Amino acid sequence: MALYVQKFGGSSVANIERIEQVADKVQRFHAEGHQLVVVLSAMSGETNRLLDLARQVSDKPSPREQDMLVSTGEQVTIALLAMALEKRGVPAISMAGWQVPICTDFEHGKARIHKIDAGHVVQQLNSGKIVVVAGFQGVSANNDITTLGRGGSDTTAVALAAVLKADECQIYTDVDGVYTTDPRVVAQARRLEQITFEEMLEMASLGSKILQIRAVEFAGKYGVPLRVLHSFQQGPGTLITMEQKSIMEQPIISGIAFNRDEAKLTIRGVPDTPGVASGILGPVSDANIEVDVIVQNVAEDNTTDLTFTVGRLDYEKALGILQQTGDTLGARQVSGTTHIAKVSIIGVGMRSHAGVASRMFAALAKENINIQMISTSEIKVSVVIDEKYTELAVRALHSEFGLDTPLVTGA
Amino acid sequence: MALYVQKFGGSSVANIERIEQVADKVQRFHAEGHQLVVVLSAMSGETNRLLDLARQVSDKPSPREQDMLVSTGEQVTIALLAMALEKRGVPAISMAGWQVPICTDFEHGKARIHKIDAGHVVQQLNSGKIVVVAGFQGVSANNDITTLGRGGSDTTAVALAAVLKADECQIYTDVDGVYTTDPRVVAQARRLEQITFEEMLEMASLGSKILQIRAVEFAGKYGVPLRVLHSFQQGPGTLITMEQKSIMEQPIISGIAFNRDEAKLTIRGVPDTPGVASGILGPVSDANIEVDVIVQNVAEDNTTDLTFTVGRLDYEKALGILQQTGDTLGARQVSGTTHIAKVSIIGVGMRSHAGVASRMFAALAKENINIQMISTSEIKVSVVIDEKYTELAVRALHSEFGLDTPLVTGA
Repeated sequence: MALYVQKFGGSSVANIERIEQVADKVQRFHAEGHQLVVVLSAMSGETNRLLDLARQVSDKPSPREQDMLVSTGEQVTIALLAMALEKRGVPAISMAGWQVPICTDFEHGKARIHKIDAGHVVQQLNSGKIVVVAGFQGVSANNDITTLGRGGSDTTAVALAAVLKADECQIYTDVDGVYTTDPRVVAQARRLEQITFEEMLEMASLGSKILQIRAVEFAGKYGVPLRVLHSFQQGPGTLITMEQKSIMEQPIISGIAFNRDEAKLTIRGVPDTPGVASGILGPVSDANIEVDVIVQNVAEDNTTDLTFTVGRLDYEKALGILQQTGDTLGARQVSGTTHIAKVSIIGVGMRSHAGVASRMFAALAKENINIQMISTSEIKVSVVIDEKYTELAVRALHSEFGLDTPLVTGA
Repeated sequence: MALYVQKFGGSSVANIERIEQVADKVQRFHAEGHQLVVVLSAMSGETNRLLDLARQVSDKPSPREQDMLVSTGEQVTIALLAMALEKRGVPAISMAGWQVPICTDFEHGKARIHKIDAGHVVQQLNSGKIVVVAGFQGVSANNDITTLGRGGSDTTAVALAAVLKADECQIYTDVDGVYTTDPRVVAQARRLEQITFEEMLEMASLGSKILQIRAVEFAGKYGVPLRVLHSFQQGPGTLITMEQKSIMEQPIISGIAFNRDEAKLTIRGVPDTPGVASGILGPVSDANIEVDVIVQNVAEDNTTDLTFTVGRLDYEKALGILQQTGDTLGARQVSGTTHIAKVSIIGVGMRSHAGVASRMFAALAKENINIQMISTSEIKVSVVIDEKYTELAVRALHSEFGLDTPLVTGA
């Protein structure tokens, strides 16, 4: 008998039929003798419908009242799931964030969990009930309803799993696990049995939208075993753990991520004085534009070229700022393009294997793909290339690092 | 400067446009320097939408989960009104039932208010805020959300007004006050300046659907001045008070109520033994059918005739039960009809005026209207007549008791 925290997102509870399917699934786990805490999001579309009502009333609704409003979304789904379980003869009780209570700070719309008092939940579990908790919401010390921000339901589930010392936190989604890369790009992409928290963080931040980064960080911090599974299909999903223990031969690279949401800006021929980089990037970050990859070169004539990437939606704004900076600093040229892609190889295995980066560059060179920028971390190498080569690059790397063939897994 | 509790029902907050209108109205009161607590229902239709979701999941959803579900309706409207007020520069704060807190018993779906701890509301009022409270809902000692049952928002408003010792509890509706009778039947029907709680109770239970009976009882018990007004029209409405003080000449009759929702059943020639009435009516009430007017006659041959009325929807069921009872008791005949109406004259003034009932019967006789049943109380006389004479009877009585001509009112 295990204690599981299971989280179902908005598309898994989008309508009554889906809620019934979730109830069937939860009932099966219960019948196996497990204790269950189920965390739900609002029906997909409901949060946006509520936000739209708010926007009809006010351009700038107060965050407190907005949280009051949108937190009703999960309250509806938890009540409906509890009813569906009770109909099946499975004892269940729903709990809004304040009823658990999930105590947060005062940052409406992006609150952080301070403390969860799990006594009430444990009491209900021990009385044989399935506890159905509203995700995404909590309560401040003022007794005001707060929300954790978009995707916060994952965080709710992980936090509850941590406090309850659950055997596993299971995140049910519309994919059956974490893949070596996007199966729409590489037909041979395969589901990973396991992945480490660090790898998952890199995968997520690079565009795999399966799990909220914050939830993964949280799970890593508290050592909560996290599993990604498909809501309505059978299968073991992907387990996210501290260490990949059970795989007999650890692969060097776990996955290939890519991202076409960025744009590249370059400023050339800036007189190279101390602080020039912050002189260029300062105004950009002052405008709340996040900068990702940065590369700086110093030329022989004592001028500097600096290239960086920003989110594609911020491109026009960033270019305008950079042109002003260029005028001020007397730069030779300011240019940019949105036609780029970032492709990354990720794997904790590369820590102990030299030459992974050069193997990556060679594989791309073999396909005549020019590398525009390079960025590395301990478990990741990213390159920026022309967008049109994205699929070709991903396929080449997927093959190069042996991800096309199924691994023999232990356990 | 006064303290008002103002309640707006579902049709007054049915959409964003109406919520903006309510905000305008509330803002005007605030600008006059009054302290305001605003109680809201869910958008009209929303509670039914939510109940329909519940019914799709389960024939018999648990009352606790149903309350969890439907209580979201008011949470949406209070947040939206608070936003609309803040947009106008009027400080406001919304509060769900549990945040006030409005403490109730454990009877989900029809909870009764035990206690309201008004400290938090008073604190917010004193800080200059309009407090927007979710009607219809409370919280049990288990920390579970409860609802007060349909129309419970009126009760919420009255209870808050009682605890806060408000100067007036204003119920905003889609009518501009309480009328002497239904204006659709009698063109001369006029709005009453004032009516007593007792009269209002008789009016409400006889079919005037303006206020919840429970709220009127509550207001009477705690002496809360209650005023019925139109949500979107100007006007003083009708004040419901302990005593009609300011009207110079107190009328004998305040209003004429009528009801076409009942049916009449008769059992004749039952041997008259002790307990015969309960032998006849017991099986009816055992079937959860409410009986209204009852008339019993004993004939010379020592048999009894008994006639009673039930809600029209229960007629077929009641007739079946009565036929079985008739067989068992050896009755001569069992019959019934749905073609009846109950017409009542109501007024605290009749306490001190003899002959009111006979004046009523004479007025009906003058119109050749046969009286089938009579029922009286201290401030009401009701007759059951053939349904087809309803309008004629109401008009005749409205004229007979001087309600056609506007009263001269004091103050």
